[in-house]
Amino acid sequence: MARKSLSGFPEWLPDGRIVEQFVLDHLRHTFELHGFVGIETRAVETLDELEKKGETSKEVYVLDRLQAVKDAEAGRGHSKERRMGLHFDLTVPFARYVVENANELDFPFKRYQIQKVWRGERPQEGRFREFTQADIDVVGSGELPFHFEVDLPLVMAEALSGLPLPPVHVLVNNRKVVQGVCESIGVDDVEAALRGLDKFDKIGPEGVTAELAEAGIEAGQAATLVAMAQIRTSSPEEVRSGVAALGVSGELLEEGLDELCALLEAADRRLPGTVIADLKIARGLDYYTGSVYETEIDGHEDLGSICSGGRYDSLATDGKRTYPGVGLSIGVSRLVSRMISIPLVRVSRKVPAVVVVAVIDEAGRVRSDEIAARLRARGLATDVAPSAAKFGKQIRYADKRGIPFVWFPGQAAEGGAASTPDTVKDIRSGGQVEADADTWIPPVDDLVPRVEAVG
Amino acid sequence: MARKSLSGFPEWLPDGRIVEQFVLDHLRHTFELHGFVGIETRAVETLDELEKKGETSKEVYVLDRLQAVKDAEAGRGHSKERRMGLHFDLTVPFARYVVENANELDFPFKRYQIQKVWRGERPQEGRFREFTQADIDVVGSGELPFHFEVDLPLVMAEALSGLPLPPVHVLVNNRKVVQGVCESIGVDDVEAALRGLDKFDKIGPEGVTAELAEAGIEAGQAATLVAMAQIRTSSPEEVRSGVAALGVSGELLEEGLDELCALLEAADRRLPGTVIADLKIARGLDYYTGSVYETEIDGHEDLGSICSGGRYDSLATDGKRTYPGVGLSIGVSRLVSRMISIPLVRVSRKVPAVVVVAVIDEAGRVRSDEIAARLRARGLATDVAPSAAKFGKQIRYADKRGIPFVWFPGQAAEGGAASTPDTVKDIRSGGQVEADADTWIPPVDDLVPRVEAVG
Repeated sequence: MARKSLSGFPEWLPDGRIVEQFVLDHLRHTFELHGFVGIETRAVETLDELEKKGETSKEVYVLDRLQAVKDAEAGRGHSKERRMGLHFDLTVPFARYVVENANELDFPFKRYQIQKVWRGERPQEGRFREFTQADIDVVGSGELPFHFEVDLPLVMAEALSGLPLPPVHVLVNNRKVVQGVCESIGVDDVEAALRGLDKFDKIGPEGVTAELAEAGIEAGQAATLVAMAQIRTSSPEEVRSGVAALGVSGELLEEGLDELCALLEAADRRLPGTVIADLKIARGLDYYTGSVYETEIDGHEDLGSICSGGRYDSLATDGKRTYPGVGLSIGVSRLVSRMISIPLVRVSRKVPAVVVVAVIDEAGRVRSDEIAARLRARGLATDVAPSAAKFGKQIRYADKRGIPFVWFPGQAAEGGAASTPDTVKDIRSGGQVEADADTWIPPVDDLVPRVEAVG
Repeated sequence: MARKSLSGFPEWLPDGRIVEQFVLDHLRHTFELHGFVGIETRAVETLDELEKKGETSKEVYVLDRLQAVKDAEAGRGHSKERRMGLHFDLTVPFARYVVENANELDFPFKRYQIQKVWRGERPQEGRFREFTQADIDVVGSGELPFHFEVDLPLVMAEALSGLPLPPVHVLVNNRKVVQGVCESIGVDDVEAALRGLDKFDKIGPEGVTAELAEAGIEAGQAATLVAMAQIRTSSPEEVRSGVAALGVSGELLEEGLDELCALLEAADRRLPGTVIADLKIARGLDYYTGSVYETEIDGHEDLGSICSGGRYDSLATDGKRTYPGVGLSIGVSRLVSRMISIPLVRVSRKVPAVVVVAVIDEAGRVRSDEIAARLRARGLATDVAPSAAKFGKQIRYADKRGIPFVWFPGQAAEGGAASTPDTVKDIRSGGQVEADADTWIPPVDDLVPRVEAVG
């Protein structure tokens, strides 16, 4: 279902696009059911905005007007326009949008945003350079209640669980737990601890221990951190007993544990078996300050986290006000690419039409168009045969595209001959019955192309 | 509903985005009803591909990886990567996609494509530099029957007529008519004739006559062309009699008139009053070879054509095969911008939720979440109050967003007290009634945000 003519820029054939559109529609539907508002931001930000975080500057695609480039190459001086680049995520543009429109938005502001993003990865790395993300965030003005840290990962878990995928698990941790443990055992360099823990899956406990030692963290401290990182359970009691067994304590730690356990308890009520506390989840050195989230698909752990995020006390600030938020982002292209390439799904047909109206001869096209209009008026996606070829060829037109029904216009009464009724043929079974374009309804399962799990 | 912080890159507030999404959903629905397949192409093409047509090179945004730019600026040499730019329309990428995937596509291939495009206009021109287009095209392999030239403008007319807009007219012409008239009166430079006619609305008949004279077209010839350009009618008979009155004839002209009149007749059957033959429509010097189309909204002629296109005998070619096509493109952003700024429409609310479940106290949030889950399970977009504030404040939360209903959880039986039922309040009327989250249904009109014509 996929074609790739320019490395890193995926494109799908029509059946692949049906899978992608199905995923996008399902995500949007779930987000709207939960009251999230859709917005889009421009693809372009000023370089100032994109470089605020410094680290990511390598990945930005910068824009220039071709004419300005040609002028510069011809020595006619470079453009003085503000330099712009393509956004590399949807968080930076959203933060800018919130500050810019703060007076017109209602807080807490719950938004979803489904758009393409671009990263100027070196082509040889084989990564996507253009891909679609689907983000949800809630942003408060000045404050944001904790319960959103419970709600948002559950919205994403619900969204992903509704797709034809193996079981999905949301892995959660809380920065306050990690910081609380560090405080309790006297590790000052929390960033170094996070950096080490972040590599747990890649380098294992010994590797992390070595890494922590290099950062000046003592063997005993490292042992506690590594033991903590191995706590993985969906039971709040086991989280508490596991941490207690480390012999650590403190106010921040308790706050973190309370939050983490509240999330597990709510998840157990609302989506049992979906959310797992995993205390090695660190989410790099980002701006997260509370809950952090990653997501695994059973049997596809190699894909990495396809949905990640967390709580940030300052998503944005305009000097006067600070906007705390919590959000998660799904890597849609990575997910869809996996669904298509394995494949995890199949589609029942490659086009929207459920029926093709045959054309008896070109003079009869008027009648076929009129039948199609009556079917469409009742919401049935309908195609009309492109030419008045032999019926065998018109049936093949439908068959090649997976269109299940072909409609044959009847004949009006003429001369001595009586009129004949329209008929419709299910080309899968070969069954053909009389039908009226004002009342015929195909089986519900055939109404739109189905996207189904394979096997 | 609009904000614009970077000139030429429009962004909408949430209510504006609801209008845009409504338009996009309606277009997609109409295209799918007619059997068109949705595809997306990457935002990026190689410069070779983008510059094939030469003329447009000024409008392209070229991409560079920021790191490569910095390396070049530091004298570390420029990247040897293939140069890429953002697409400026959806026709060039579609032509490339067709050639690349010809073996996997079924012809005639009917596709729709709704995506952003970018043009590196100088900012002072006040044009959009990022905007959304919605295209439909049918492409054949080697050949493409004429009837698609009738079908496609009618699909677009149907799509636009279904939006809350003043009446929309599709203006049509046929290149063969213009060429046939030129042949008949001995004008060899058809391109010059087209170039002159294209300016009719801007410079009037005298201006066009002067322009044609400059191009070496004689006064008598120019008079015929200007007279032809003033033929505007939805009646096939009037088209034929108007052209006959010019005293012209010829085989190509007859073929063009037959096609143009066939289109008017079909339009009169299927969408009476919508399609008008307008013989001054030239569509520049493009690759069109048969029908050409433009579209006007009554009272908004200043917007220019918001939906244009035509027939091309060679959309693409791979050396062996040629792919003729016919297609039209809607300038969605220009249309939505007008709908929002006048405004031509209003939205009934700024969020998807039809109901907010109130929270009595934070301990009771569990119960509010459970009610929300039951409402969502039946497809009702539901929000939960962000805090257990006084009910007046929770009602204001709904009111500010235009959410019509607030749900008040009842109390479970406790001690000697009997249980009280849930109630739901219509905050517009103030009416409050008992309700069950498993059965309550809001009025159909309130289910999703409505986008309605103003006045």
